[in-house]
Amino acid sequence: MTSPTATLLVSCPDQRGLVAKLANFIYSHNGNIIHADHHTDFAAGLFLSRLEWQLEGFDLARQEIAPAFAEIAEPLQATWELHFSDAVPRIAIWVSRQDHCLLDLIWRQRAKEFSAEIPLIVSNHRNLKGVAEQFGADFYHIPITKENKVAQEGKQLELLRQYKIDLVVLAKYMQIVTADFIAHFPRIVNIHHSFLPAFAGANPYERAYERGVKIIGATAHYATPELDAGPIIEQDVVRVSHRDEVGDLIRKGKDLERVVLARAVRLHLQNRVLVYGNKTVVFG
Amino acid sequence: MTSPTATLLVSCPDQRGLVAKLANFIYSHNGNIIHADHHTDFAAGLFLSRLEWQLEGFDLARQEIAPAFAEIAEPLQATWELHFSDAVPRIAIWVSRQDHCLLDLIWRQRAKEFSAEIPLIVSNHRNLKGVAEQFGADFYHIPITKENKVAQEGKQLELLRQYKIDLVVLAKYMQIVTADFIAHFPRIVNIHHSFLPAFAGANPYERAYERGVKIIGATAHYATPELDAGPIIEQDVVRVSHRDEVGDLIRKGKDLERVVLARAVRLHLQNRVLVYGNKTVVFG
Amino acid sequence: MTSPTATLLVSCPDQRGLVAKLANFIYSHNGNIIHADHHTDFAAGLFLSRLEWQLEGFDLARQEIAPAFAEIAEPLQATWELHFSDAVPRIAIWVSRQDHCLLDLIWRQRAKEFSAEIPLIVSNHRNLKGVAEQFGADFYHIPITKENKVAQEGKQLELLRQYKIDLVVLAKYMQIVTADFIAHFPRIVNIHHSFLPAFAGANPYERAYERGVKIIGATAHYATPELDAGPIIEQDVVRVSHRDEVGDLIRKGKDLERVVLARAVRLHLQNRVLVYGNKTVVFG
Amino acid sequence: MTSPTATLLVSCPDQRGLVAKLANFIYSHNGNIIHADHHTDFAAGLFLSRLEWQLEGFDLARQEIAPAFAEIAEPLQATWELHFSDAVPRIAIWVSRQDHCLLDLIWRQRAKEFSAEIPLIVSNHRNLKGVAEQFGADFYHIPITKENKVAQEGKQLELLRQYKIDLVVLAKYMQIVTADFIAHFPRIVNIHHSFLPAFAGANPYERAYERGVKIIGATAHYATPELDAGPIIEQDVVRVSHRDEVGDLIRKGKDLERVVLARAVRLHLQNRVLVYGNKTVVFG
Repeated sequence: MTSPTATLLVSCPDQRGLVAKLANFIYSHNGNIIHADHHTDFAAGLFLSRLEWQLEGFDLARQEIAPAFAEIAEPLQATWELHFSDAVPRIAIWVSRQDHCLLDLIWRQRAKEFSAEIPLIVSNHRNLKGVAEQFGADFYHIPITKENKVAQEGKQLELLRQYKIDLVVLAKYMQIVTADFIAHFPRIVNIHHSFLPAFAGANPYERAYERGVKIIGATAHYATPELDAGPIIEQDVVRVSHRDEVGDLIRKGKDLERVVLARAVRLHLQNRVLVYGNKTVVFG
Repeated sequence: MTSPTATLLVSCPDQRGLVAKLANFIYSHNGNIIHADHHTDFAAGLFLSRLEWQLEGFDLARQEIAPAFAEIAEPLQATWELHFSDAVPRIAIWVSRQDHCLLDLIWRQRAKEFSAEIPLIVSNHRNLKGVAEQFGADFYHIPITKENKVAQEGKQLELLRQYKIDLVVLAKYMQIVTADFIAHFPRIVNIHHSFLPAFAGANPYERAYERGVKIIGATAHYATPELDAGPIIEQDVVRVSHRDEVGDLIRKGKDLERVVLARAVRLHLQNRVLVYGNKTVVFG
Repeated sequence: MTSPTATLLVSCPDQRGLVAKLANFIYSHNGNIIHADHHTDFAAGLFLSRLEWQLEGFDLARQEIAPAFAEIAEPLQATWELHFSDAVPRIAIWVSRQDHCLLDLIWRQRAKEFSAEIPLIVSNHRNLKGVAEQFGADFYHIPITKENKVAQEGKQLELLRQYKIDLVVLAKYMQIVTADFIAHFPRIVNIHHSFLPAFAGANPYERAYERGVKIIGATAHYATPELDAGPIIEQDVVRVSHRDEVGDLIRKGKDLERVVLARAVRLHLQNRVLVYGNKTVVFG
Repeated sequence: MTSPTATLLVSCPDQRGLVAKLANFIYSHNGNIIHADHHTDFAAGLFLSRLEWQLEGFDLARQEIAPAFAEIAEPLQATWELHFSDAVPRIAIWVSRQDHCLLDLIWRQRAKEFSAEIPLIVSNHRNLKGVAEQFGADFYHIPITKENKVAQEGKQLELLRQYKIDLVVLAKYMQIVTADFIAHFPRIVNIHHSFLPAFAGANPYERAYERGVKIIGATAHYATPELDAGPIIEQDVVRVSHRDEVGDLIRKGKDLERVVLARAVRLHLQNRVLVYGNKTVVFG
């Protein structure tokens, strides 16, 4: 399906006729729906939907779609987003010393597993500068201390504006991002190296080893002010045994981290993730 | 959601407006859709859909729905099924000597994991007669030999008619069902004790052991005339090692078999499985 | 391997020559080792070993083995257990209202997945009395309240003595067992319906649903005075999605609970689990 | 455990006293065993063992160990290998056009997940020459046709000699290696992009898609003259659905391929894999 598409992500109070109204909006303008998924959270009384249709043959120009849909959405009290598949989102990757998630994301972007530009890499350490340069991304070393955190986050936010960044990926950044930062820039995907909510916070592999678990995991989630408590996008696990020492958990965990983070980033970039409350609907 | 629902399973050549047409049919009669899933197989040029809506408030009587929808479906060249959630399907279970899948299905039915009656159990051995009696099902011992197979399948088909059976579950029946039987009664779910298409046919655990695989599986599929080659509904796997002998594979496999078969039966009974070609769409 | 075997579980401070000393003990008495597994926890400085050998041809009588091995073990400062494979352990199963783990364990015992007797079932509810009677186990209804807990646990301990119970299995007992009870009878395997340490305590499925996790789990562990914090024997997980409501998590979780508990009970009964600190070595 | 170790891989006909004899060999020379695993394949009447001990304090010089152990091994009719942990094996990687397995292996080697040199990369295409150069490996473009295969394999074998290669890794080489090549150089690990024995041969993802499987896999095995039929070292799987087209299977499969191949290569390099018949024992 190489022709460009539009995608609507919609959530609104549940009521009769929602699927019909959404589908009619597209059909009445001669759109060809290629994916339509809906979910009703009965406990929350909420209808959540993702519709993707081909722009070819659609009788509204791109800039006319949002205003036209707003008229549908308003009486439904819907919150919604509109995306075009040929827009190329711009990602900034925040790293610390470890390179596995960074290299993995860059490889996937170059292998066209997702469509995005990666113009900006920020780190509190210098050691991955060479990787950034090799792949043509600008690298900023912004070391964080307790004292300078507010100022440094200001610099980071300025970079996000300057580079027109759509999504920040915390690819083993190992630093807490403040509530203030998130309030200014909420589109942040983080990878945490545990099967949340187990082992939130620091040193999850050490704690998993101490606890003697038989399975370890990794969790990709949107960052929220509360540490490691944001809406979960994706998780996966791998079996471990008494023979695995902390170093083995770290090694096995790295494979989880990069796969789980990559899946989450891809799902986000394909506009398949709809957040409501502290949860996500992930449209497959 | 305890009020009764209707479910439409629809497949037709892909074209513009299908989601709208289906949703409008329900909305125009004041129906409240609670699940709507659609899939397009672009290679096959096929649109496949499942719609479930509450009958409460729907302004067509049950017997009017099919005729009314037929008028929508006909110009779309759609094939479709209509089901009501409060209809209680009648299952016949075919077994051989092993009891684990049979007991598991009975337990799940009694635990209300799915809604069905199990009035009939057929076996080529006598040893599970007591289980059938204990749970109030009629048991027929129909031993199969090369010579009597055609005659015995005739008896089986007569029982299916007599007991008004909707679905046959081959719960480790260990006998090949003939193409002729399937032609007369096609609604048959089989569990095969391997990760198909690996180890189709006899003695899969022995062959898995000989091959030295590190993972074994089980597969639930609709029976077709070609052995172990029908549309797959569900599969699952478990890890094994060099320490596992054939007996261990059999033991571990039993846990897979009962879970995979139970999931498939439940999905079928909830009208979540749509067969096309030799494949299934499983609406989650 | 149907001839009876002896199994030694040994742990001691790590030092040179341990494998040789253990193996020589068996070989010098003409024993044929059929399984020998060793593990060294370097952080703890601990050597842990499991040796199983055939009694046929062994030149020590059963009652001579322990005294003879004690002379080897003493200078090594080893703690150790000796078991014979033809001893049939006696299990008591503690249940609440749910039957799935109970029925599953009974089925596996009858299918000879493990060798044990189940003479005693204890519950704080009456509803599973019929199951106990059907399978020939004595059933005691011992309802627990805050006020009577100490007295009722006294009755339970008396039953354990009376029935010569070797292992208590908490098969969804849904009650906290006191530290005092555990001090008197420490051989208790519990199944907790979450992926520990996530969601320890009450209502794990509800909390998993609220948290929006994408995978749920179950954990079998030895009971210790601290709730859901004992040494983990086995864990497993299953994927869930936004479509799964609490009832679906409970249903999917039941399949995990019975498999994970059964694996743990079998491993324990085969003397494959060695506890040290708050961890286990599980010899495969 | 950073001090160098020696590892013995031993297989011989099963008999009394084998663990003792092996352990005594090491203990009598003052060796400290850090890993000892044994397996008996009762069907094959075979004892298989892996022993690893610290060289520090061992009273035989390295070159004395093999002759001394040969005297133990001879009367046992044992086949055996001796390895030292500080020897750095030399790997040649065979690739076709795809880079994911190659890059992954290089990254893991640089991240010290295993200890090896990668001096040589051979391909039937030119496109990964730059990758080889970037990481300091020599690259040889050896295009294969039906006509030149024998001659080109001769060149390849000459390169293996010239570069003193210990292990060839077929990292998505996509060409059949002849029996003659394997006879001259048997240490070859291949990754096949299916869950063998399902979908051996060409185009496994297309065939998995056609068959409508719900799970796909990858398999790492030693190459043997019969295509995709050699001893399996490691397998893993991932769930797919009707929404996954062939391109999605390929994408998901790549993640499996690189993890499964990396695990197999690491296990091989740590001398944890013992081949017997057409099977492997993988010492964990």
